[in-house]
Amino acid sequence: MSIVMGENNYGKSEVRLVKVDRGESHGNRSGNRHGLRDITAEVSLTGDFDAAHVKGDNTDLIATDTMRNTVYALAKQHLAKDIESFGLALVDHFLEAGPRNTGVRIKLTEHNWNRIEADGAEHDHSFVKGSGKRTATISGDKSGDRSVHAGLDDVTVLKTTNSGWEGYLHEQYTTLPETSDRILSTVITAEWQYNDTNIDFDRAWERVERRILQTLTDHYSPSVQNTLYRMGYAVLEEQEAIERIHFSLPNIHHLLFDLERFGMENDNEIFQATSDPYGLIEGTVERTS
Amino acid sequence: MSIVMGENNYGKSEVRLVKVDRGESHGNRSGNRHGLRDITAEVSLTGDFDAAHVKGDNTDLIATDTMRNTVYALAKQHLAKDIESFGLALVDHFLEAGPRNTGVRIKLTEHNWNRIEADGAEHDHSFVKGSGKRTATISGDKSGDRSVHAGLDDVTVLKTTNSGWEGYLHEQYTTLPETSDRILSTVITAEWQYNDTNIDFDRAWERVERRILQTLTDHYSPSVQNTLYRMGYAVLEEQEAIERIHFSLPNIHHLLFDLERFGMENDNEIFQATSDPYGLIEGTVERTS
Amino acid sequence: MSIVMGENNYGKSEVRLVKVDRGESHGNRSGNRHGLRDITAEVSLTGDFDAAHVKGDNTDLIATDTMRNTVYALAKQHLAKDIESFGLALVDHFLEAGPRNTGVRIKLTEHNWNRIEADGAEHDHSFVKGSGKRTATISGDKSGDRSVHAGLDDVTVLKTTNSGWEGYLHEQYTTLPETSDRILSTVITAEWQYNDTNIDFDRAWERVERRILQTLTDHYSPSVQNTLYRMGYAVLEEQEAIERIHFSLPNIHHLLFDLERFGMENDNEIFQATSDPYGLIEGTVERTS
Amino acid sequence: MSIVMGENNYGKSEVRLVKVDRGESHGNRSGNRHGLRDITAEVSLTGDFDAAHVKGDNTDLIATDTMRNTVYALAKQHLAKDIESFGLALVDHFLEAGPRNTGVRIKLTEHNWNRIEADGAEHDHSFVKGSGKRTATISGDKSGDRSVHAGLDDVTVLKTTNSGWEGYLHEQYTTLPETSDRILSTVITAEWQYNDTNIDFDRAWERVERRILQTLTDHYSPSVQNTLYRMGYAVLEEQEAIERIHFSLPNIHHLLFDLERFGMENDNEIFQATSDPYGLIEGTVERTS
Repeated sequence: MSIVMGENNYGKSEVRLVKVDRGESHGNRSGNRHGLRDITAEVSLTGDFDAAHVKGDNTDLIATDTMRNTVYALAKQHLAKDIESFGLALVDHFLEAGPRNTGVRIKLTEHNWNRIEADGAEHDHSFVKGSGKRTATISGDKSGDRSVHAGLDDVTVLKTTNSGWEGYLHEQYTTLPETSDRILSTVITAEWQYNDTNIDFDRAWERVERRILQTLTDHYSPSVQNTLYRMGYAVLEEQEAIERIHFSLPNIHHLLFDLERFGMENDNEIFQATSDPYGLIEGTVERTS
Repeated sequence: MSIVMGENNYGKSEVRLVKVDRGESHGNRSGNRHGLRDITAEVSLTGDFDAAHVKGDNTDLIATDTMRNTVYALAKQHLAKDIESFGLALVDHFLEAGPRNTGVRIKLTEHNWNRIEADGAEHDHSFVKGSGKRTATISGDKSGDRSVHAGLDDVTVLKTTNSGWEGYLHEQYTTLPETSDRILSTVITAEWQYNDTNIDFDRAWERVERRILQTLTDHYSPSVQNTLYRMGYAVLEEQEAIERIHFSLPNIHHLLFDLERFGMENDNEIFQATSDPYGLIEGTVERTS
Repeated sequence: MSIVMGENNYGKSEVRLVKVDRGESHGNRSGNRHGLRDITAEVSLTGDFDAAHVKGDNTDLIATDTMRNTVYALAKQHLAKDIESFGLALVDHFLEAGPRNTGVRIKLTEHNWNRIEADGAEHDHSFVKGSGKRTATISGDKSGDRSVHAGLDDVTVLKTTNSGWEGYLHEQYTTLPETSDRILSTVITAEWQYNDTNIDFDRAWERVERRILQTLTDHYSPSVQNTLYRMGYAVLEEQEAIERIHFSLPNIHHLLFDLERFGMENDNEIFQATSDPYGLIEGTVERTS
Repeated sequence: MSIVMGENNYGKSEVRLVKVDRGESHGNRSGNRHGLRDITAEVSLTGDFDAAHVKGDNTDLIATDTMRNTVYALAKQHLAKDIESFGLALVDHFLEAGPRNTGVRIKLTEHNWNRIEADGAEHDHSFVKGSGKRTATISGDKSGDRSVHAGLDDVTVLKTTNSGWEGYLHEQYTTLPETSDRILSTVITAEWQYNDTNIDFDRAWERVERRILQTLTDHYSPSVQNTLYRMGYAVLEEQEAIERIHFSLPNIHHLLFDLERFGMENDNEIFQATSDPYGLIEGTVERTS
C-alpha cells in the first residue's frame, strides 16, 4: 500500500472582466451606443500534474497568471455574443495551451446591467446594476467532448400567498403547526445542461428564466419540493435542448409575528423574516429514456 | 478630575419586518392583489441612562426585545404608506414609552421588490427582489423637534465613457497617467435632509433618484468630485423641500488591461475590474442663506 | 422519453447550537468551570421523496423545522465529546425518524473559543473566539454504512520566504517573471476521511492540524501543488486511520510593490496584498493498494 | 439663498499593505527571523477643494492613486514599530503633499498573525492568522494638532453565566421574561483617545485589551450597559494617557431552547444562537474636570 496523488485541479478564480463594446452593434448607427459586459471568470484545469505535485517539477504547468492574461486576451476576439460561446472558446484554447492538460472547466458569471433612463430614453453609455446573475459552466476534454451548463443565481423571489405546508410527518420532535397559507420565499440557484452546443444560448436562457418565474406564480405550492419539480418540468417540457436542470432552493422562513399578545389580530399580515436556520431543498429534474 | 459616562445610546438592530397588504389598495377591486413591504429597522434611544450604566439599575429601561415587539406592533397600524411616516410614528411612540428617553432615532431600510410578470401581466402576489435600497432616518426629541432624512443605498452605476481624470497634482509619488476617457463606476449612497415633515415622501424620493441618475448621464465627468457636486446641485435645485444632500461615492477602478504585450490593441475595450483599493469621495451639497 | 425527478435531498441549514457544559467535567471539582460548544449544523436527507415532488403529497416527510428541534434535543444527550460522535448519533436518529429516508448527511462546523486569561489563570466561564474552524461530515444509510470526514476551514497561513514559482511553461500569454523567493499565503480548507468510526477523533484532528502546519514550515515550496502533496503525504503517513485527504488552497497573491520608481529598493519587503483574482489549487492525497 | 459645497473629504480605502521585516530585530542574530506586518490603510483628506467640486478643476488635487503609492513608499521607512507612529508620519506627509490640504485622517487596521509552532518552537517565517484586529485613527491639521485614537475590533466574547437582565420597564409591548442567568455575548469594538502622542503605543494597547477582557470576567453583569461602563472605567483608571473610550457592543442573543416540549430539562444548557435582530449598546466613558 502506498500514498499517491489522487484527483486534482488548479486554476484561477475571480478574474473580473469588463468589456465595452464601442461598435455599432447596439442598434445605433453612429457607433455611440456602447454595450457593457461584466463577467467573473474561473478557469480550472485537470491533467497529468503528478510531476508538479510529487517532485515539485513545474515544467509544462501553465501559470495561473497566464490563465488570467488569457481570459482578457481571448475576450477581445471571442466575447462577442453569449458567455457560453466565450466559454467554449476558452475550453478549446486551454486544452491546447499546455501539453499535460486533459480537461478544462470554465465557470462564467455575468452580472446584469440595465441602461439608465434619461430624458425618457435608454442612455447610450450609462448603466445601473440589476439583481440576479447569469452563469455558465463549460467543460471539455481532449477527446472533443464538450458540456455546456447554464444557470441563474441570486434570484430572490417571494409569494405572499398560495403556498402551504401540510400533511407532513408528526413525530416526537415535531412542533410546527400545519398551514395552508404561508409566505414562500427563496433565492433561486438553477443550473441546467444543454444536450447541444449549437443553439441560441441567449434566447434559451431567457426562456428558462421566464418559465421558472412564471411557474412559481401558477400553482398552489404544497411544498418547496413540489414547486421545484414543477419548475423543472416546465423548463424541460418547453425546450428539447435541455437535458436536465438542478435547483438549490433555500426556504427563507417568514414567521407570523404573535400580535395577539397585544390584543391585535395578525391575519397573515405582519411577519418576521429570518436569516437562520433555513430549509434547503435541492434536486434535479431530468429526461429519462 | 473624575471618570463619568459620556454620550451613549442603545437599541435594537436588524429588526426584519415583512408586511403583506392584503387589502384592496393595490388597484384591484377583488382584494386579491397584495402589496409587499420588506423593511429592516433599527431603533436607537438616548436619554438619562446613568443609573443603568453606573449602578446597574435597569428601572425605566425599555428592553431591546420590547423595541422589537413595538416595531412589529406599530407596523400593523402605522405602516400604510411611506417609511418616513412609519418612522415618525415610531419616534413619537418611543419618546413616550420610557420615562428617561429624551431622543429617538429610527433607521429604516426598504428592500425593493418587483412584481413577477406572468402571462404578460404583473402578478398579484408573486415578487422578485430588485437591486438598490431606499433608506430613511427619522430622529426626534422631547421638545417636539423631528428630523427626516431619506436616502438610497447600494445603487451601482457605470459609465463606459464621458469621464476622465486630468490636470491633477504631479508630485514625487505620482505615477498615474492622465486620461480623458475612462470608465466611471461607483456604488451610490446618498442621504438627504428634508426641511419639512409633511410632504409626499414617495414622490420626493423618486424625483431624487431620477435626478441623480439623470445627472450622471448628462455631462463629461472630470472627477467624481465634480459629478458629486452636480448631482447634489440638481437635486436641491429641483426640490425646495430638500435642505442638504450627502453622498458617499467609492470610485471602483477599472484598469485598462495591457494587451499590447500580446500584439493586440486595447482601445478602451478590455478592463480589469478591481475590488481594492478604491477611491472614496464624500461630500455634502447644501443651501446657504 | 419522459421527464422525471432525479437525485434530490432536503434538510435544514445554519442550525446554530450553543451548549454550555455546567458539569464537573472540566477539571474543576466544584462544578463552576463551564465548557462551551459552539456548533453550526446542517442536516440533509435523501430517500424516496417522489410523492412529495411529483404529487405534492407530504406524507412521511420530516419537516425541516423538526430537524432543527432534533439537533437541539439530541445535543442534550449526545453532544458530550467530539462532533463526529454527535454526528453519528444524528445520522442514526434520522435514518429511523422517517419511513422514506434512506440516506443522511450531517455537516457540523465547530467554532473555536479560548478561555479568557484573568489574573493569570484561565477563567471558568468567560471565552474569546479564536480563528479557524473544525468541521465534520458524517454520512450513513439504511445498510449500516457510515462515513466520517473531518476537516479544518478558514485557517489562513503565510510564509514570508522559502517559497517560489519557477520553471513553468512560457507561452504566448505568459508574462509573470519567475521567482525563487515570494510570499506564500493561503486559506486552508482540508477534509479527510477516516477508515474507522471508532477512534479518538479529537486527538486525530489535533494531529492532522499540527502536521499540516508543521509541513508548511519544513520545506522550500516550489508550488502550492507540491506543498499540498507534502501536507497530505505527511498526514497519511502519520495516521493509518486516515484514508484520504482533500485540500482546497487559494493562492492569495502578494505583489512586490514597485518602489524603484521612487528611488527606493524593495528587497522582498513591501507587498500589496490582493483580493482578486486568486489561484485555486485543489487535490486529494490518498492511499492505494 | 444659494446652493454650495459643504463638508467633504476624499481619499483611498482598502490599501492592503504587507511588510516583511527581514532584519535582525526579532530576537535572532542570524537575521533569519522575519517579522510580519499586515495592515489595511485608509487615507482621507479635507481641504479647500471647491474648484474641483464646482468647476471641475483638478489642479492641486492629489490623485487617490498617489495616496496609495505613498502608503507603500512611507511603509519602507516609517513602519518600524507601532501603527500609531506610522499614522503620524502619514499625516505629516499628506499635510505637506498638497497645497490645498488642511486636514488628514489615517485609519489603520492591523491584522493579527501568530507564529506557527514547529518542532516545539515558534517558526522564523511561518505564520497563522489570529482573530481580532487592532485599529488606529490618526488625525491632524495644518495648525499642528494631532489626535491619536487606538482601538480593537472583531473581538467576540461570551460569558456562559454571571450575567442577567432584570428590573427593566414592563409596558404594553414587553414580553421578555426577566432572568438572573443568561449568556452574555458580544463582538467588541472599542476606540479610545490618547491625550499624548508620545507614549509606548504597543504597551498601552495591550494593557487596554487585557483590562477590557479581565473586566468582562470580574463581575455579575446586570446589563451590557453596566459592563460597558465598568470596562471603560477600568481602562481610564489604569492609564492616565487615555482621555476617553467608546464602545460599540452588539448584544448577540442566545435563546434558551424549549426542550420541555420533549420531556427534557434545559437548565441553561442548550441555546439557539441568533443572527438577528440584536441589541446594540454604545457609549463613551470619559474624564471630566
